[in-house]
Amino acid sequence: MLDIQAFDQINPPARLLMGPGPINADPRVLRAMSSQLIGQYDPAMTEYMNQTMALYRALYKTNNEWTFLIDGTSRAGIEAMLVSAIRPGDKVLVPVFGRFGDLLCEIARRCRAEVHTISVPWGEVFDPQMVEDAIITIKPRALLTVQGDTSTTMLQPLAELGEICRRHDVLFYTDATASFGGNPMEVDAWGLDAVSAGLQKCLGGPSGSSPVTLSDRFADVVRNRKHVEQGIRNATHQDGCDEIIYSNYFDLGMIMDYWGPERLNHHTEATSMLFGARECARIILQEGIDTCIARHKLHGDALLAGIQGMGLKPFGDLKHKMNNVLGVYIPENVHGEQIRQTLLNDFGIEIGTSFGPLHGKIWRIGTMGYNARKDTVLMTLSALEAVLNRFSFKTAQGAALQAAWDVYASAEI
Amino acid sequence: MLDIQAFDQINPPARLLMGPGPINADPRVLRAMSSQLIGQYDPAMTEYMNQTMALYRALYKTNNEWTFLIDGTSRAGIEAMLVSAIRPGDKVLVPVFGRFGDLLCEIARRCRAEVHTISVPWGEVFDPQMVEDAIITIKPRALLTVQGDTSTTMLQPLAELGEICRRHDVLFYTDATASFGGNPMEVDAWGLDAVSAGLQKCLGGPSGSSPVTLSDRFADVVRNRKHVEQGIRNATHQDGCDEIIYSNYFDLGMIMDYWGPERLNHHTEATSMLFGARECARIILQEGIDTCIARHKLHGDALLAGIQGMGLKPFGDLKHKMNNVLGVYIPENVHGEQIRQTLLNDFGIEIGTSFGPLHGKIWRIGTMGYNARKDTVLMTLSALEAVLNRFSFKTAQGAALQAAWDVYASAEI
Repeated sequence: MLDIQAFDQINPPARLLMGPGPINADPRVLRAMSSQLIGQYDPAMTEYMNQTMALYRALYKTNNEWTFLIDGTSRAGIEAMLVSAIRPGDKVLVPVFGRFGDLLCEIARRCRAEVHTISVPWGEVFDPQMVEDAIITIKPRALLTVQGDTSTTMLQPLAELGEICRRHDVLFYTDATASFGGNPMEVDAWGLDAVSAGLQKCLGGPSGSSPVTLSDRFADVVRNRKHVEQGIRNATHQDGCDEIIYSNYFDLGMIMDYWGPERLNHHTEATSMLFGARECARIILQEGIDTCIARHKLHGDALLAGIQGMGLKPFGDLKHKMNNVLGVYIPENVHGEQIRQTLLNDFGIEIGTSFGPLHGKIWRIGTMGYNARKDTVLMTLSALEAVLNRFSFKTAQGAALQAAWDVYASAEI
Repeated sequence: MLDIQAFDQINPPARLLMGPGPINADPRVLRAMSSQLIGQYDPAMTEYMNQTMALYRALYKTNNEWTFLIDGTSRAGIEAMLVSAIRPGDKVLVPVFGRFGDLLCEIARRCRAEVHTISVPWGEVFDPQMVEDAIITIKPRALLTVQGDTSTTMLQPLAELGEICRRHDVLFYTDATASFGGNPMEVDAWGLDAVSAGLQKCLGGPSGSSPVTLSDRFADVVRNRKHVEQGIRNATHQDGCDEIIYSNYFDLGMIMDYWGPERLNHHTEATSMLFGARECARIILQEGIDTCIARHKLHGDALLAGIQGMGLKPFGDLKHKMNNVLGVYIPENVHGEQIRQTLLNDFGIEIGTSFGPLHGKIWRIGTMGYNARKDTVLMTLSALEAVLNRFSFKTAQGAALQAAWDVYASAEI
């Protein structure tokens, strides 16, 4: 028999989340999410849906009509895009430069795609020519990329890949979960056909909603697989000429009919998450998307300078580092987990561990969304240095913080 | 160029949501959801996950270890259960008594199941013998039922079906989205193998999280399809002997590894939705689950009496009506949508329209979760009568409210 008195109200410990995400949500987003619900076809609700589409079009720098939310985490957004476009047997090309490239392969395999990969060592990115060469050899239907792979902290340049994809008639998808809002993203200018993201990184919200955008070309691919479900279909609904989508929840065609003028019932929109997603976008657009990206760069640079000033070595090709996350080699004779635990338990600061080949070798420190701020960067550097010193790793007193301050001074902030 | 100044903060109109759901969230749930985030492997977070499992075990009246949340709407929960259990070519039997039976068929077809159905007219439910006869003829791998189908307001009795399923070695799943928390649910006593639900009906939360529970037998079926994804798999991870699951996001095996002691990374848990789901369950268990169900019955009965007192005719077989939603025939010479719109615009009260064969014929009025209260029932009856009178539908003055009050008086509340 469960003793309900043992379950107190939610009261999470105070944490400064400086890992690779999730990070602390902007309090304004949490307040928006605490608003009371309205009916899913209330005119106020459908207007909020339309506004959310408009706000994410601006964030994604796109005119794509089909810019909306998938009700699930960022991984749900990826799967919705892949399962709606990829038919069994379709060839896809995935340039893998970290764990989330592996994830795209995994999801594509569940869609029964024929998955081809190219790879570079963790800590590097691809030259566009390498991608084009693979496209010429493999002739895939779709190129599936990750923009920012938090597992390696690298940011794959995408600007030249769109033109290559158009030239070879390849659909171009990217997962921008970890990068969106903190690094440039130009959906139309770069010729992207499909992008998905999540709220819990640079957008400053909680996990649980995935903003996506689809080009007209991608929307046509989805529309060709149209199938309106029994119970709401009527005589005007005709099936598409292509194979159905092997998911109902992630059938982008039905989700488009729900977000579009037909307002055909599909899932019941996760209203609180929509309120949160709308507020995330609204806050960034009030700041200005380019200003927001510059802010991520500034605080990322300050963190990097501070880490180097502490005598620690950053991971990977710094020319291609994401603005919002930094890999840091765990020094020899330092117990990485002991440092992380002491930071968490004594300072309430969370930094990240790592996956796969980097596990036990690097920490990952994030500066993103609401936590891309001067105070969080300086606090984290200060606390990390104190903990390192306590466990006998020597640093030059004052050097780390001074290096970070110098970055701020040169930016005149 | 988007004018961000045109986008104000979230400020939904005041609504009393008395439709078939979503309904107003309990303010305590919204407050829990406004708590600040913590890291996904923070000890406080994993403890909240464990507590959420315990709370939903109590609500579901089960000892099932695998009782957790799917990050998505109730439809996501359904698809996770079906795609993880059903292999292409598997035979399933769906007793269809409304739109959500159709939905189970649709989702099962996307899993490439061989779907068999039996049906009764909308407004009725199945006799167990009819289900057993079909099982004997069809020999399905799984029986997929809806417990409460809001499209018809009917509640399918499930108590006898579990024993039938065991006898014929059939997996027994039910979708309890619309019924859970407001009608009896005895997972272990009834021999259910798998149940999924949502927060936005009797649980008093927002859409976006789906509490599910799996019997050991069902968990074994899932485990036989085990496949740990690249990037996190290590030498100890062996694939199951059965076909993989054709979804990554909905792969219950990986989700179990994330909620279980291995804490293997899958999605990033939707923390705010988890906080909400935990609070929904905590509130009901503080009240007592049986008391909560009795409350739904009381207010459902009062609404029914009031509607009949107003001279309106309820829909369907009242012996099998869900406690929390009532179908009401739209009287002749009354414009159903005009009544609904006036209720919404002049009183801020939302009642529901209908799907399929009932479209334009009945309204659906809900009394569930936070809105299963005396004040909401009396307010709705009073406003509906006023609007009907305004549009020339005559009622006996005072009769509707008196009938509802009589129900409350006889219950000594």
